[in-house]
Amino acid sequence: MSDTHSGGPAASGGTAPSPRVPSPRVTIADIAREAGVSAPTVSKVLNGRSQVSPATREKVEALLEHHNYLRRRSRTPRTCGLVDLVVNELDSPWSVEIIRAVEETAAQHRAGVVVTALHNRPADTLRWLDNLTRRGSDGVILAVTALTPPQTRTLAEARVPVVVVDPVGTPAPDTASIGATNWHGGLAATRHLLERGHRRIGVLAGPDDVLCSRARLDGHRAALAEAGIAPDPALVRPGDFHHGTGFTGATELLALPEPPTALFACSDLQALGAYEAVRRAGLRVGRDVSIVGFDDLPSAAWASPPLTTVRQPLGEMAAMAARVVFEGHEAVLPGGTQRVELATELVVRESTAARPR
Amino acid sequence: MSDTHSGGPAASGGTAPSPRVPSPRVTIADIAREAGVSAPTVSKVLNGRSQVSPATREKVEALLEHHNYLRRRSRTPRTCGLVDLVVNELDSPWSVEIIRAVEETAAQHRAGVVVTALHNRPADTLRWLDNLTRRGSDGVILAVTALTPPQTRTLAEARVPVVVVDPVGTPAPDTASIGATNWHGGLAATRHLLERGHRRIGVLAGPDDVLCSRARLDGHRAALAEAGIAPDPALVRPGDFHHGTGFTGATELLALPEPPTALFACSDLQALGAYEAVRRAGLRVGRDVSIVGFDDLPSAAWASPPLTTVRQPLGEMAAMAARVVFEGHEAVLPGGTQRVELATELVVRESTAARPR
Repeated sequence: MSDTHSGGPAASGGTAPSPRVPSPRVTIADIAREAGVSAPTVSKVLNGRSQVSPATREKVEALLEHHNYLRRRSRTPRTCGLVDLVVNELDSPWSVEIIRAVEETAAQHRAGVVVTALHNRPADTLRWLDNLTRRGSDGVILAVTALTPPQTRTLAEARVPVVVVDPVGTPAPDTASIGATNWHGGLAATRHLLERGHRRIGVLAGPDDVLCSRARLDGHRAALAEAGIAPDPALVRPGDFHHGTGFTGATELLALPEPPTALFACSDLQALGAYEAVRRAGLRVGRDVSIVGFDDLPSAAWASPPLTTVRQPLGEMAAMAARVVFEGHEAVLPGGTQRVELATELVVRESTAARPR
Repeated sequence: MSDTHSGGPAASGGTAPSPRVPSPRVTIADIAREAGVSAPTVSKVLNGRSQVSPATREKVEALLEHHNYLRRRSRTPRTCGLVDLVVNELDSPWSVEIIRAVEETAAQHRAGVVVTALHNRPADTLRWLDNLTRRGSDGVILAVTALTPPQTRTLAEARVPVVVVDPVGTPAPDTASIGATNWHGGLAATRHLLERGHRRIGVLAGPDDVLCSRARLDGHRAALAEAGIAPDPALVRPGDFHHGTGFTGATELLALPEPPTALFACSDLQALGAYEAVRRAGLRVGRDVSIVGFDDLPSAAWASPPLTTVRQPLGEMAAMAARVVFEGHEAVLPGGTQRVELATELVVRESTAARPR
């Protein structure tokens, strides 16, 4: 096998570098001297910071690899080097946002991320707990899912900390949890539509029994009340956050004798379903019907026209959850609280416009 | 803490079940007797099979949990119970499709999945290899990324098998790899447009130096040749599989003196970018300009109109890769080969129509 990709500094004269023998005495200072850079620069490379030029980074990384620096240091681990990220389903576009942020934060702490989907199936939960107790874990991040009290107790007995990433607002007593300001998001979305002259605003709501869904709807109603508009129950269609209920709900609303001129969808996927309902009705999103979504998934920016939506900072929420695992909630959550909600933010794109006359 | 969610059979009279003490003598036969079912039924529940009624499954799972069955059995593991899934970036919608399939297959083998993103950064690769050698791994699945020969050697020395999920066609000598029939996909997409009367077909191509991209373009040209149409280089715009190059490429093609009536995009995201270019040109996808994508990500079905595309079986490819890790490539890949390509398939939705007159 050729070695042309290694780029190691030992590959002088075209020979392969020596096998990975640890060099027990090499320090950051040695690496810095050999690379002709400062020790803090080597630290920056080790910690994945961005303030290093690509050429310097490459040189330092090659030396680190050559001297087997990382491998040598990790002979006496004090942690498992693994954190568990647990979701219910991996089919939500949420998942990848959360996985990405947890993976990035865990990598900074030199840990790997074990991703598990429970599918609401107790046998899957048991298998996962079984696997976890066998190999150990530095902590568990639950995203949009929950454990039973006995399962939670099992983790507590194994001294595995648990933190919840909670975009849907499921209450989690006795557990650190990080959510988003859903009520404010519903308020901001609706104010935006009211400012553009819309008075009949349809709502593609989430499930009645999910807290974030109720908070978004209440924020919507608060904005209507500010504007002196009585809420009309006929303009609210329940859904499940998925594309299908957005499509059917919007289809029903557009067929009303006096249809709404704008729609507030409680998820981006419901908003995309509404796009298709608008198209089938022979209308155009933005020009004829304004639509606001909720989440700001990548799909929102890819929609045509690009979707105005309420950004939920999933990445920040997940990264904070990972930091709680590695640094403890006292160090990460403000004021030692167990529950924090990060701010949502309206992102205005092209799916909203002034009410047609 | 209340125990109302546990549902364990010991929770009679409202008392909490006893703590998780292993019951060392409980066998599958004991569980079966207590549940009033056959031993094979208990096995089916343990293995996550579907041929069990929900009520029976629930009863058996409760007994398994009560007797701590899984935990007890796993005292003497012969494997690490971990498989590594490595991608370059977690920002592709591909990622979640691959993670989901690997997680599901690994769970059937009672293993967890460690997900790692390398970001083309050697330091990240070193950190991951360091973490892996510390904790062990039953195997590595590389998806849309590659290791250097020394890194590959490190895994070989640690006797960790490597298998590649390869939707982009990067060659992987000496390594089991699972790809898709990209050439046939380009052929099928273009034949579909030709059958609908299109003669000027624009191409939003992927990167020149990526094999799958060239294979898709060659398949496209083969279909043109079948129809006796000479390929027109002015109708091909290179891209990077992302939304932005689809938008700019389609914008340029639609501005030609004699614009194409149909577009073949070499990724779904490029196709979605083309949707926006069509909208900005005051035209409608399907009615005025037909578009075919490639991948069949969830976004394809959520597009408005829903996108006709070439399905790449990412889930099947990833699941097969995971089976290679657990069962060996001789058992999984046909005829003991190291390389297999799964079939792509045209999925016709509403973004393609007959050529406008």
